[in-house]
Amino acid sequence: MAKKSIKNTTHAERLASEQKAISVSQFFERNRHLLGFDNPLKALSTTIKELVDNSLDACQEINVLPEIIVKIQEKDKQNNKYLITTEDNGPGIVKEQIPKVFAKLLYGSKFSKMKQSRGQQGIGVSASVLYGQLTTGKSSKITSRISKNKPAHFYELHIDINHNEPEIIQEKEIEWTNKEQGTKVEIELEGKYQRGRLGVEEYLKQTAISNPHAQITFISPDKSVIKYKRATEKLPEEPKEIKPHPYGVELGVLIRMLKLTPSKNILGFFTKEFSRVSPKLAKEICKIAEVSPNTKPKDLTHDKSSKIFEAIKKVKIMAPPTNCLSPIGEDILVKGIKKEINAEFYTATTRPPTVYRGMPFQIECSFAYGGDLKADELVKVMRFANRVPLQYMQSACAITKSTMQTAWKNYGLSQSKGALPTAPMAVAIHIASVWVPFTSESKEAIAHYPEIIKEIKLALQECGRKLGIYLRRKKRDAEDKRKKSYIEKYIPHVGDALQEILLISDTQKNKVQKLLKEKLESPKEDKK
Amino acid sequence: MAKKSIKNTTHAERLASEQKAISVSQFFERNRHLLGFDNPLKALSTTIKELVDNSLDACQEINVLPEIIVKIQEKDKQNNKYLITTEDNGPGIVKEQIPKVFAKLLYGSKFSKMKQSRGQQGIGVSASVLYGQLTTGKSSKITSRISKNKPAHFYELHIDINHNEPEIIQEKEIEWTNKEQGTKVEIELEGKYQRGRLGVEEYLKQTAISNPHAQITFISPDKSVIKYKRATEKLPEEPKEIKPHPYGVELGVLIRMLKLTPSKNILGFFTKEFSRVSPKLAKEICKIAEVSPNTKPKDLTHDKSSKIFEAIKKVKIMAPPTNCLSPIGEDILVKGIKKEINAEFYTATTRPPTVYRGMPFQIECSFAYGGDLKADELVKVMRFANRVPLQYMQSACAITKSTMQTAWKNYGLSQSKGALPTAPMAVAIHIASVWVPFTSESKEAIAHYPEIIKEIKLALQECGRKLGIYLRRKKRDAEDKRKKSYIEKYIPHVGDALQEILLISDTQKNKVQKLLKEKLESPKEDKK
Repeated sequence: MAKKSIKNTTHAERLASEQKAISVSQFFERNRHLLGFDNPLKALSTTIKELVDNSLDACQEINVLPEIIVKIQEKDKQNNKYLITTEDNGPGIVKEQIPKVFAKLLYGSKFSKMKQSRGQQGIGVSASVLYGQLTTGKSSKITSRISKNKPAHFYELHIDINHNEPEIIQEKEIEWTNKEQGTKVEIELEGKYQRGRLGVEEYLKQTAISNPHAQITFISPDKSVIKYKRATEKLPEEPKEIKPHPYGVELGVLIRMLKLTPSKNILGFFTKEFSRVSPKLAKEICKIAEVSPNTKPKDLTHDKSSKIFEAIKKVKIMAPPTNCLSPIGEDILVKGIKKEINAEFYTATTRPPTVYRGMPFQIECSFAYGGDLKADELVKVMRFANRVPLQYMQSACAITKSTMQTAWKNYGLSQSKGALPTAPMAVAIHIASVWVPFTSESKEAIAHYPEIIKEIKLALQECGRKLGIYLRRKKRDAEDKRKKSYIEKYIPHVGDALQEILLISDTQKNKVQKLLKEKLESPKEDKK
Repeated sequence: MAKKSIKNTTHAERLASEQKAISVSQFFERNRHLLGFDNPLKALSTTIKELVDNSLDACQEINVLPEIIVKIQEKDKQNNKYLITTEDNGPGIVKEQIPKVFAKLLYGSKFSKMKQSRGQQGIGVSASVLYGQLTTGKSSKITSRISKNKPAHFYELHIDINHNEPEIIQEKEIEWTNKEQGTKVEIELEGKYQRGRLGVEEYLKQTAISNPHAQITFISPDKSVIKYKRATEKLPEEPKEIKPHPYGVELGVLIRMLKLTPSKNILGFFTKEFSRVSPKLAKEICKIAEVSPNTKPKDLTHDKSSKIFEAIKKVKIMAPPTNCLSPIGEDILVKGIKKEINAEFYTATTRPPTVYRGMPFQIECSFAYGGDLKADELVKVMRFANRVPLQYMQSACAITKSTMQTAWKNYGLSQSKGALPTAPMAVAIHIASVWVPFTSESKEAIAHYPEIIKEIKLALQECGRKLGIYLRRKKRDAEDKRKKSYIEKYIPHVGDALQEILLISDTQKNKVQKLLKEKLESPKEDKK
């Protein structure tokens, strides 16, 4: 069957001529469903999400209260073309950076920082520009101003897909009279505008819950205006950037760090490039690895590096610092959920920070029960990662899994096996982390790390216990009321009977009836 | 709350200094779960899958019957370190290409071809090299020979993660005495070796079902040898490369094609760069778009390009050619499944090719029923895409969804609502396409395109009807047998009774009994 080898050489050479590099833009153009652009409904929603998340991150960087305008305009109804415009009051972007930030995939400032932020991959907004270009052929428009002392800059950008580089269609200084600083983005795309669980309004509503310090104005295609008002003037705690923790570093990464470090010796390397490594601890690691602390990092053989890697596992290192995290906080969580959901009972809890694979993270959750919520539906689960609501891929998410695996019957709710409980309740769960492990680039679901699932369950149980107490009291109160109304009916008859038996006067009878009623209405100390 | 604008300028500038490009290697190093390296068990399995798929593709390119050796060796049990080695008899890879093929992500020959192949993204094997390097710090080793007239080449490769470029640790000519051509790859990695549904043996067993022309030898860590023998000498039909179909091209892509085409006019552009567009049809499109067929593609305005795009939708274009697809075929499907599963009934069907988003695809499926398969278990679903078995993410896959949504009761199987049927049955479903839409880079599940789901259901129904006929006949035969044995018992008594009533001789009695028995055993024409 094998052909002559001379012919096969030609084959290998022919194959060689076809090999080429694929730009990351080409890759995602073909695989756009990986970025959340599976269908027009999701594409529109994903675009607004990426833009609003960027605006919130930008405002947070400079500690201003965000004021964001989101506008959707119908451009061509028949072909489902929409123009999305967002405008913020963030720091703006310096002129030279605008093209790359918006028209190059895998470009950004957040990827290499160990710090909690909404964006983390350097893909989001440029993916929206790519999708807009793909479906409408149109370029995207960016206006940005970084100070009232400087003019605003306007760009019209395309992505050169074969090279994953920005292509500038137009660039100019413009007047932006009513704006001292901020960024405005306009993207035209094929989309579908729809209300409901997967729509833009729901995303904005949930964003308002997890970011009650933000003010968001939404102008829908029918020109109606919805304002998501600020519920607190308090800015979230600005998260700090941290260094990697030794427990979270893999061998290959350690070797690369050793190769690239400016430190002159292992001692300096450990104390400067990691968090929680004191000189004493660094020396201990070196001792176990049988390496001198004065060795030049570049001189380490693969074998010695492996020994250091093993030694790290053998020493006890304090958990990473947690000021890199900025949880929403119990008070503000309740404030946020109260603003959007009218219920009869609210509770919230923020768990202490902990660690998965060397990455600090923190879980918090809040419940809203009763009121406008429907009793015969499954509990509504709202998922948040670094304050960003997650709308899609609910069933693939560790948050959903943890909620389904919680024993809700303990807290007075009914629940079928392997399902969410049925109750008039909404649950909001938030994970804050320097690196949220998503199951895909579209950042829609949290990967199933056991440490994360455990913490979510603990948070749910904490709120669950408070709910259980409330529901038991409520049930008892209702029972008491029922009993009371039952006895109340009989008080006149009791009065009459007493009158007949004891031959008392009408005044006495009325007095007895009044006494009985008072007795009935007094709190039952023994029971409470 | 807003600070002085002069301060904010500093902010925008400070932020600018932190912006940088992220290499695709850095991105996937951080997000390795996207590539199928979530945990050590899956990492080992994914690596073997990528290597074997590449070998099968390579052999197919030059039409040789694949002979592949897969070896797993335990290097360090305590730390779960394994050495994976694969060796094939493919065409080999020319020396200059080896570093990029194995140590640069997004590099390959298959991405831009409209042709059915196992690999399609240019990520697979380099992702395994990346993962090995990350978890063991070791480089990967490649040996390749393209002809008996040329020496073999040996490389030791690393990935320069910050630049996504190969780093050559060692390179030399070597003797490869027992091999005229082929490629050998050695990757050391952190893994977990385990038998069962998600293990390597299951992947190889299923690969043998969908590739019965391949011979695969597996040497497990305990040095036992399993041979998956060739079941047919017939090579699969070599799929042809096709041009894109106009219905599958998006506006942005059309505009880019118009910009990059070497054609001098629209007429030539359409007839040369698309499949199924005749000069007559091209002129019709131009007429509807109100563009002259002689216009230079580069001269088209955005508006004109949009009109051409709209015009494409208005003309009737023949479906794309389907010789780009190479289905396994009903005969070979049955042969493959027979080899690995001992059952009592087999059937298979190959559907005619059809199209989703302009991409040709084709569904086929085969059933094995009874025999060694267990009656009280859910049907075992084996999923294949371009002959590659899919082991993970079963519940997220369009194949599973389609199987659960099929009404199996019609074919005599029991099924709970929203579940797979319960029966002693294995189902293998194969999708062949020039571009299989996977839900993630790890290529584990098929996205839920309605056209694909519809075709899978039709294939299942076709096989289901044949199964139904078999099961009804089986049931009837069993019933007949039961009745027969029941009547048989009474024949002697009938004989005795007749003898008593009619006073016939023993000979006559025996004759009557014989006749009755014959009558009982004759086929019941009316029933069949």
